[in-house]
Amino acid sequence: MIIIGEKVNGSIPKTGEAIAAKDAEYIREIARKQTAAGSHYLDCCASVNENELETVQWLIELIQEESDLPICIDSPNSQVCVDAMKFCKKPGIINSVSLEGDKIEVVFPVIADTEWGCIALLCDDNGIPHDAAGRIEVFKKLMIRAEEYGIAPDRLYIDPLVETLGTNDQSLLTFVEVCRAVKELYPDVHLTSGLSNISFGLPGRKMINIGFMVLAMNAGMDSAIIDPTNRDLLGVLFATEALLGNDEYCMEFIGAFRQNLFGPIKN
Amino acid sequence: MIIIGEKVNGSIPKTGEAIAAKDAEYIREIARKQTAAGSHYLDCCASVNENELETVQWLIELIQEESDLPICIDSPNSQVCVDAMKFCKKPGIINSVSLEGDKIEVVFPVIADTEWGCIALLCDDNGIPHDAAGRIEVFKKLMIRAEEYGIAPDRLYIDPLVETLGTNDQSLLTFVEVCRAVKELYPDVHLTSGLSNISFGLPGRKMINIGFMVLAMNAGMDSAIIDPTNRDLLGVLFATEALLGNDEYCMEFIGAFRQNLFGPIKN
Repeated sequence: MIIIGEKVNGSIPKTGEAIAAKDAEYIREIARKQTAAGSHYLDCCASVNENELETVQWLIELIQEESDLPICIDSPNSQVCVDAMKFCKKPGIINSVSLEGDKIEVVFPVIADTEWGCIALLCDDNGIPHDAAGRIEVFKKLMIRAEEYGIAPDRLYIDPLVETLGTNDQSLLTFVEVCRAVKELYPDVHLTSGLSNISFGLPGRKMINIGFMVLAMNAGMDSAIIDPTNRDLLGVLFATEALLGNDEYCMEFIGAFRQNLFGPIKN
Repeated sequence: MIIIGEKVNGSIPKTGEAIAAKDAEYIREIARKQTAAGSHYLDCCASVNENELETVQWLIELIQEESDLPICIDSPNSQVCVDAMKFCKKPGIINSVSLEGDKIEVVFPVIADTEWGCIALLCDDNGIPHDAAGRIEVFKKLMIRAEEYGIAPDRLYIDPLVETLGTNDQSLLTFVEVCRAVKELYPDVHLTSGLSNISFGLPGRKMINIGFMVLAMNAGMDSAIIDPTNRDLLGVLFATEALLGNDEYCMEFIGAFRQNLFGPIKN
């Protein structure tokens, strides 16, 4: 599993406050903690209305003072994503494109001849297709564009998107159907998800998020944008890898436990 | 999901101590708590070397003072199982038979013309078949015997059995394969499991047990022998029912949360 640490994101209230207050130490701390918890990439989203690129630069430089991990540049503004690439010491991931507007035209030419990856959401100018067939159509169109730019499938992280379970009780089943189709069409493509959308508006969200992660991994999801310092979520993630037969003799699971990444906190 | 509360079991150290000390109040308390936590049956296992039937009678009477739930009579001795039926106020479940020894000959004739259910483990005199095909063979033989006695498939709770993941990293995958085959052959048969065997000998067992429960439910498991007072396990159980499309608008999930069956403890 490729873990993208989600915490440097201004839409998370505490991070938003730290960004507003220019609290460099808080940003450094969450970068450090997510690195220690086994992240493979660190997401960086300013979520500000003004001076976004400047704020993203500040955040990326702080993260890179604390961590050697590559950055996942996260903005609804594709131009900000590509403009921020120059602040990064090594290739990371653009978060994200979709078939909406000119996102692909802005991002794909810039990353074409690089080692950057890219998250792609299965939506277009009409929003998120309600059913699996609609999202699979978006996926196929997206792969045609990727091929035009010579971007190999294994550089793409497809997010099939989920509606909240509170309004659509088929939400996980649709997600699973899309995952299976994507993997059948392009086995090398990665599948990812911002886990917590599934539980939006519901109580006991942590329970839904954990169940969703297990079922999504079972359907082929091999990456997730999560809080790796959430010890229960991370423990179930390692457990699920072992249960799915991807961890011989549970060596990774046992190693993570011994590193104190989950389980009762040891001081 | 049919929840069989597991806590009145002498092999659990605290319950074993209570049985040895004839601590009636402890037994009453765990019966009460498991009932309040939404169990559908309460397992009752003496796990003593001497006077087993007498101890089982004592336990069943204590449970029935506190709870109207039917009993799941649990003993490796089939004769004790059938002899204890007379202590029960209503039909419950026998836990368990298998193709080992004369278990079926002892249990099936006695329950044939009753409303009792029966857990059946997919093993025989040679132990637990290592692969799925071997367990499916045991299942087919078992169903022939059930038919001989006129025991309908929906009275049977099949436990496909699991080896610990620490020694067999295909353990869950084998379990899932057996579940799917069982449901294809006899859609009305229930599937159950004593969850925690999967994590025997491993650290962080709770993480493995939760992941296993989600994946087993996804494969058709509709019953489990668990501790329903484990709030995280119960929360993920309700979440998984909702994720699998079995809980319209998450009404059951939200109801269980409001009943305070999981989530942060409210006083």
